[in-house]
Amino acid sequence: MQHDAFYLPTVAIVGVGLIGGSLAAALKKARAVGRILGVGRQADELEKARALGLIDEAVTIEQAAARADLLVLATPIGAIVDGLEQMHAHLLPHTVVTDVGSTKLEITRQARLALGAAYPRFVPAHPVAGAEKTGPAAADADLFQQRNIILTPTPETQSTAQKLVRDMWLACGARVLTMSPAEHDELLASVSHVPHFLSSVYMWQVASADNADLRLRLAGSGFRDFTRIAAGSAEVWRDIFFSNKAAILQELTQVQNAFQQAESALRNEDEQALFDFLEKAALARRLWASRSGHHE
Amino acid sequence: MQHDAFYLPTVAIVGVGLIGGSLAAALKKARAVGRILGVGRQADELEKARALGLIDEAVTIEQAAARADLLVLATPIGAIVDGLEQMHAHLLPHTVVTDVGSTKLEITRQARLALGAAYPRFVPAHPVAGAEKTGPAAADADLFQQRNIILTPTPETQSTAQKLVRDMWLACGARVLTMSPAEHDELLASVSHVPHFLSSVYMWQVASADNADLRLRLAGSGFRDFTRIAAGSAEVWRDIFFSNKAAILQELTQVQNAFQQAESALRNEDEQALFDFLEKAALARRLWASRSGHHE
Repeated sequence: MQHDAFYLPTVAIVGVGLIGGSLAAALKKARAVGRILGVGRQADELEKARALGLIDEAVTIEQAAARADLLVLATPIGAIVDGLEQMHAHLLPHTVVTDVGSTKLEITRQARLALGAAYPRFVPAHPVAGAEKTGPAAADADLFQQRNIILTPTPETQSTAQKLVRDMWLACGARVLTMSPAEHDELLASVSHVPHFLSSVYMWQVASADNADLRLRLAGSGFRDFTRIAAGSAEVWRDIFFSNKAAILQELTQVQNAFQQAESALRNEDEQALFDFLEKAALARRLWASRSGHHE
Repeated sequence: MQHDAFYLPTVAIVGVGLIGGSLAAALKKARAVGRILGVGRQADELEKARALGLIDEAVTIEQAAARADLLVLATPIGAIVDGLEQMHAHLLPHTVVTDVGSTKLEITRQARLALGAAYPRFVPAHPVAGAEKTGPAAADADLFQQRNIILTPTPETQSTAQKLVRDMWLACGARVLTMSPAEHDELLASVSHVPHFLSSVYMWQVASADNADLRLRLAGSGFRDFTRIAAGSAEVWRDIFFSNKAAILQELTQVQNAFQQAESALRNEDEQALFDFLEKAALARRLWASRSGHHE
């Protein structure tokens, strides 16, 4: 697909870490933007983003709101909500606002409260892309290529605003899907938040063992893959967990049931039951790999 | 390190799948072997291994025992035990026997029963190398480069036999460690078997959901990494789980305790406790990545 026509004079990105920085890099690579304004709490990280050419200028969030055609909130979830409150009084009449938060129900609710009349120009969005690295130095212009971006518009969302955000992500090489905030949060609890929870629980347990060093010396490529997500930012993931608490707790209950079934099969030496269990998981994972387009 | 001097005229590999096939490829690449005999249950897979140049000749396990200087059992654990029983009467007086089984206590116990007078020439071994792919087509001459190979000799094990197996793995580019079978099994329960159990439990739970297809369409790179090991052979892993049942069940209890601590922090909105938990896991994983030599 070609999207040569997509162009915005001024885009502001609040939070120029992995996701914000990669979005900046992707927009520049696609020549889809004139000027990128960067906003951030940490002056040194912001300066790094400027030195890397990700942003053209560091500004305050109020300045960003007063100058940008599109404002992207790319901070951890807690700061997204703070950002909405800080900038709404300064927004230009035409500015579209979007975010990259990993949960959507709570952010949408907070945005309605914070943005008032500007709420129809807020397009809640979530790029489903790896976040185990952090900081602007990890920014990658191709991070969103073939990745899913989920838009979760509400009945109030302006269709022109939604189209603008959709076109921006298409220009970055992403695939764009649309669903309700609630459906998004339930699905992501299953395929993103629960794996992070389990990987972190496991990593914590190994690291807390008396002989952790010896264990970790023997860890191989299976361990490497299984625990990669546990290296993600604790701040980002704490926010995600609390922001999507209900859906995650419900999903964890299902996982615990499955855990106990498999553990019982092992404890009771039910070889056929454990084999069937492992076989179903293996076949499902292999089918996913053949369909998903993810590189193994 | 150079190991140019290592050379064996005839090596037999029983089970020419990923591990056996990769060992064959690595020995050939290192010019460390004259002739490789292959043994396998599935004639088509064995013929594939021959066509790929991994083995020079397909033989029965009895023929392999009667001709090889070194015999490597590279089948799932259940078949390793069967193999020991089938071949022990046919072994040449000097033949060294080793295996690649992922658990060591039970195999060592069975080997003592099966091999009788030949038992001192059995060197229990475990290459800690990825096994999520299967079959000879996945064989890779570099699979063991910089990977840990754990030898678990018993008081009876001949030091000359142990040295031969050690030198074979060094010739394949691996690092060789030595410990007791019991210590091996406890450590591997933690860093290998439990991750596979958790990844499979999770994958099974997602695949069993009513809306599994929709969930799986949204799964991203975190899901991909977390579930990669769940694609492994159900037969191989069923054998591993039952062969190391006690150590795995004990480790799973610890993981469940950690799970419940983290879940309680989420349920009770203890943000600091969940943050500390995630931060400890993240720091431990990042430290591991910087030390392990594994490519991310």
